Amino acid sequence: MAVGLSAPTKLLPVKGVQLATAAAGIRYQDRTDLAVLTFAPGTQCAGVFTQNAFCAAPVTICRTHLESTTETRALIINSGNANAGTGDAGYAVAKACCEKAAALLDIAPEQVLPFSTGVIGELLPQAAMESGLIQAVTVFDADNWLSTAQAIMTTDTVAKGISRQVQVGEQQITITGIAKGSGMIRPDMATMLGFIATDAEISAEDLQDLIRSATRTTFNAVTVDGDTSTNDACVVAATGAAGVLVHPGDAVWRDFVAEFNAVCLYLAQAMVRDGEGATRFVAIEVSGATSIDEARDVAFTVAHSPLVKTALFAADPNWGRILAAVGRAPVEAFDVSLVTISLDNVLLAEHGGVAASYREELGQTVMDKEEYTIAIDLGRGASSAVVWTSDLSHDYVTINAEYRS
Amino acid sequence: MAVGLSAPTKLLPVKGVQLATAAAGIRYQDRTDLAVLTFAPGTQCAGVFTQNAFCAAPVTICRTHLESTTETRALIINSGNANAGTGDAGYAVAKACCEKAAALLDIAPEQVLPFSTGVIGELLPQAAMESGLIQAVTVFDADNWLSTAQAIMTTDTVAKGISRQVQVGEQQITITGIAKGSGMIRPDMATMLGFIATDAEISAEDLQDLIRSATRTTFNAVTVDGDTSTNDACVVAATGAAGVLVHPGDAVWRDFVAEFNAVCLYLAQAMVRDGEGATRFVAIEVSGATSIDEARDVAFTVAHSPLVKTALFAADPNWGRILAAVGRAPVEAFDVSLVTISLDNVLLAEHGGVAASYREELGQTVMDKEEYTIAIDLGRGASSAVVWTSDLSHDYVTINAEYRS
Repeated sequence: MAVGLSAPTKLLPVKGVQLATAAAGIRYQDRTDLAVLTFAPGTQCAGVFTQNAFCAAPVTICRTHLESTTETRALIINSGNANAGTGDAGYAVAKACCEKAAALLDIAPEQVLPFSTGVIGELLPQAAMESGLIQAVTVFDADNWLSTAQAIMTTDTVAKGISRQVQVGEQQITITGIAKGSGMIRPDMATMLGFIATDAEISAEDLQDLIRSATRTTFNAVTVDGDTSTNDACVVAATGAAGVLVHPGDAVWRDFVAEFNAVCLYLAQAMVRDGEGATRFVAIEVSGATSIDEARDVAFTVAHSPLVKTALFAADPNWGRILAAVGRAPVEAFDVSLVTISLDNVLLAEHGGVAASYREELGQTVMDKEEYTIAIDLGRGASSAVVWTSDLSHDYVTINAEYRS
Repeated sequence: MAVGLSAPTKLLPVKGVQLATAAAGIRYQDRTDLAVLTFAPGTQCAGVFTQNAFCAAPVTICRTHLESTTETRALIINSGNANAGTGDAGYAVAKACCEKAAALLDIAPEQVLPFSTGVIGELLPQAAMESGLIQAVTVFDADNWLSTAQAIMTTDTVAKGISRQVQVGEQQITITGIAKGSGMIRPDMATMLGFIATDAEISAEDLQDLIRSATRTTFNAVTVDGDTSTNDACVVAATGAAGVLVHPGDAVWRDFVAEFNAVCLYLAQAMVRDGEGATRFVAIEVSGATSIDEARDVAFTVAHSPLVKTALFAADPNWGRILAAVGRAPVEAFDVSLVTISLDNVLLAEHGGVAASYREELGQTVMDKEEYTIAIDLGRGASSAVVWTSDLSHDYVTINAEYRS
């Protein structure tokens, strides 16, 4: 199902990171649904979390724990249950799971970050989680990244992960990241989760800047259906175990950031490629805007339009729908006669209407492809932005209409 | 297909209004696709138009003509072609059609307002329009409202119209309105159009206030897919032919406004009931907001969520999706522990999670119905708003993916 995406065959270990999975029986039968990551002492951790006001209990706890400790030592992640919309009882269970993991690993509860993904509104079964944690702590291995990527899947059809390395003199820094989700939200299975680790040594402050900055053009630049989950989270850990300190201003920092962004972009795009019912993977590139926010607003308006998304599904070069979506974007004093719209290299629209050079068969050739770009030049400034999205297919409706039945 | 909606059997003539239709062969075979309405001398006219920056040529001309004349005398409306995204050539054709109609009716071109609905991006065929106008002007009748409602349909499955009357002493004021569309947009068939006439005498200024005010809680409070058309327009004409002057402050004004709003609300809801692929008609009532805008923002966020809309289609009381949509609405300092969510009278959520009294079978009973209310109390203020919407069904995807093929 996923567009141009297959599971990674190999993910590289990151010095200072151990991983384990277990089949805790939270919702699924005959598969792993719990993962534990541990980090060497001294590991710095930073994260970005959902802006949804109804955020899940584990998100609230993550935020509190990250503020109250200088050293995160473990992540516990379950699939099958989002522990969202579960009120005080859900908070208590998530808290108890952190305490159980802390006791098993001999660390403080505040050094544990919990993550949940799955159905909203059902209480996370505490006994299953605890027996899963007891199983998991016996099977740690540095080479368990791929099995961890599999354990956190919900309706994902493909496990998502990538490794990149940066050479620093004689030494090598590794960055490995995994993610699950198919857009900003998996319906019911309400979560995008991303976990990235590096064995570089990076200060907590630099790490927070790094993930915030990378997120804007990667995880926050993809959309499947425009819905923001209650559980979205992306966390990065820097163990320092490679013995290489990197920070802004270093010669190696730029290379490191480039590789880090590449990891985030791969994972973000992988979620769209595996978007629910996705048959297309489309980049919406907006240029000529007066600000990056303006460019993003236009790109997201097009990416969220059900009419554009059904045209992508049908491979219908129905440029009027793209034009109409651009026209309703929140842009002040919008002179549409300056706008040009292209499909890959085929000019669709200019001067407020269809381009004189446009022929339907040219547009058709592009839209018959699985992957292409819709390029929109607003002709009013120098800022640009890209958003990646999938189409709206019959399978999207089927998956979301029939999931619980 | 339409939910709880059938075509009107009788629409009342409005004194001072004559109507005619013709089969101009613009796109469809064997059906009418052109309508002309004429108004008695002295008729006042006001309108509201799409905010889409890529507005169609006829919308631009409507705005200009309404500003440059004190007396609108005719409307010409075609279906099958939106004359949108057609640049200068499209503008010239629309202008030529107004001139042709003006010549046939012996009025000034500025006294004619043009409206188009249908496929975006194809030039409106001028010759077909002109021969259609020649046919139409021979068959005027005050009793042609229903046939006019039929002529302006595109993918509508049911003609939409309603009449209401207000008794003023011995005299009667009539309001008749017709509309086409299935939400803020008909994909391709890109238009919501509404035409309302009354034989009351109302000043141009009062008429503009009236339509603006009514639109906010009627036409602008419905959504099928969140897309705003390039051609949306709603126009009201007051002929004064009933010989009754009404204006704000009159004893009769309140009754008149109530009936006028009822006409607008009926037509707006009729478009949702006939929304593409619609199987449900759902009111989203938001109360306890700090402002009407805040209440509308929350209601539209829920109404536009693909996850909520697919759950409506599936009759799945998946309250987590409603909660997640509320949680991502643009509300400052949002304390979700104060929010309650109900399906008709069934309390779903309170205190940040599922209500203690909630049982799945209670929610199921409501969602099995074709029409119901999702009531959301934000618990932070005294303002409220209602939005009406339909579901996201397989037929929506089919209609929008396969329309042009």
